[in-house]
Amino acid sequence: MLALAKDNACVVTTDMLMDGVDFQLDHNDARRIGRKSLAVNLSDLAAMAARPVGAVISLALPRSGGEELALQLYEGLILLADEFDIAIAGGDTNSWDGPLVISITAIGEVTPGKEWRRSGAKAGDEILVTGSFGGSILGKHFDFTPRVREALLLAERYEIHAAMDVSDGLSLDLSRLCEASGCGAVLNLSQIPIALAAYELELRDGQSAMDHALGDGEDFELILAVASVVAEKLVAAQPLDVPLTRIGRIVKESGLWQQSGVGPPQSLAPRGYEHQL
Amino acid sequence: MLALAKDNACVVTTDMLMDGVDFQLDHNDARRIGRKSLAVNLSDLAAMAARPVGAVISLALPRSGGEELALQLYEGLILLADEFDIAIAGGDTNSWDGPLVISITAIGEVTPGKEWRRSGAKAGDEILVTGSFGGSILGKHFDFTPRVREALLLAERYEIHAAMDVSDGLSLDLSRLCEASGCGAVLNLSQIPIALAAYELELRDGQSAMDHALGDGEDFELILAVASVVAEKLVAAQPLDVPLTRIGRIVKESGLWQQSGVGPPQSLAPRGYEHQL
Repeated sequence: MLALAKDNACVVTTDMLMDGVDFQLDHNDARRIGRKSLAVNLSDLAAMAARPVGAVISLALPRSGGEELALQLYEGLILLADEFDIAIAGGDTNSWDGPLVISITAIGEVTPGKEWRRSGAKAGDEILVTGSFGGSILGKHFDFTPRVREALLLAERYEIHAAMDVSDGLSLDLSRLCEASGCGAVLNLSQIPIALAAYELELRDGQSAMDHALGDGEDFELILAVASVVAEKLVAAQPLDVPLTRIGRIVKESGLWQQSGVGPPQSLAPRGYEHQL
Repeated sequence: MLALAKDNACVVTTDMLMDGVDFQLDHNDARRIGRKSLAVNLSDLAAMAARPVGAVISLALPRSGGEELALQLYEGLILLADEFDIAIAGGDTNSWDGPLVISITAIGEVTPGKEWRRSGAKAGDEILVTGSFGGSILGKHFDFTPRVREALLLAERYEIHAAMDVSDGLSLDLSRLCEASGCGAVLNLSQIPIALAAYELELRDGQSAMDHALGDGEDFELILAVASVVAEKLVAAQPLDVPLTRIGRIVKESGLWQQSGVGPPQSLAPRGYEHQL
């Protein structure tokens, strides 16, 4: 039983991760897989400025070695659950002849009216992001810290118009936030914080670090749209343990645009991981 | 966002159903599979006397025909969600090369202190059940009505010491309730309500209808332990749309016992579906 603070409402997020699609059990440590399965849900809660309360875990385990595997998965995810003080409120553990499937549902609480949505961005807002982008496949996609603490602090102290976590790619997820808000965005490419891993990946695959920053999935950072006066304050105060960087602005005209130097903005095609049915 | 009534707490249940284990996609209608996936969760909520509030649905769909399949699954489960006025509060839809996996998490609300548990049965309590038992494989295991309305009505009007839903078999689940309560139970076999389907199955497989009633899984009826004065009232009043039947009593000595006619109770081995890791 999960008690919520008085007058708070529940929000729920769920993610299913499958061997061969979201991870390779042959090549990845099960503890990291377990941790990530919970972390992606916490990132979803962070995007709503919801305080995580509990989670339930369902597993379809391969018959051979399933018990050992379950223990390792739990080891990884319990560490994260403890870090964020979340109750593991149950689950459903199964065996089958198929590959490993992990389904986690996390419950959070919000004060109604105070939760963040994708749809609140307004023309004139500035776009801020936490952390840096690109190359997460080199490690961050497993070991990222969901921006829960950051979201709760920001939600308490500042007025945030719209928010989203970056799971599929900075430019793609920003374009979704814009679509939900009925507006567009102009990015100042020179201001985008590019992760070291993106440069490392550039050396390996020849694709530019900027392309990785704009299109790689699983950074699990936050995109925020705030009034420009709030952006000023946030960038000056830097109230988080991770950098907050201004990367562009929300505009009336729909679509994604890039600005580099002087001259009018050029159209920018959103890139990232498109889920296909 | 799921708003709860003032001062209520969240309870969460989750169930994962897999093709080849919990159903055979080749042989079963996807609408019935979808309905059942939600219904088993509602049955879990009923066992806690929790009011269902919402559910989230994660799917791993086979690549071929996945979209059509998803629509059919939703068709079945939306019917049930509407019947019980539950919000489908999100989900995660995926494709892969593996078999269909459905993971549903349902959220319910309870007034803290008023929720039912398995652990509250006391020596001297009478054991009541809703409905009838056995042979659910002939159809009820798909088409059962989760006893949500019944549970909420009983919880409001009567003091129920312990409760459980029968998913793995009447005798097995009763033995679990007893174990959780630190007591035992004596069943009056002649009073057990045997489903017509159990007799039909007896004709087919030669195993007695009584054996089916005691050991078949997926009846999704409720077992209740109540003070004997409450049992009297309930059996006389029959406040539900399904029959409430007294089938035995809770005793101090642990274990499961059967009584038929005069003489001391005989030990009864719990039978049912044992989950294996």
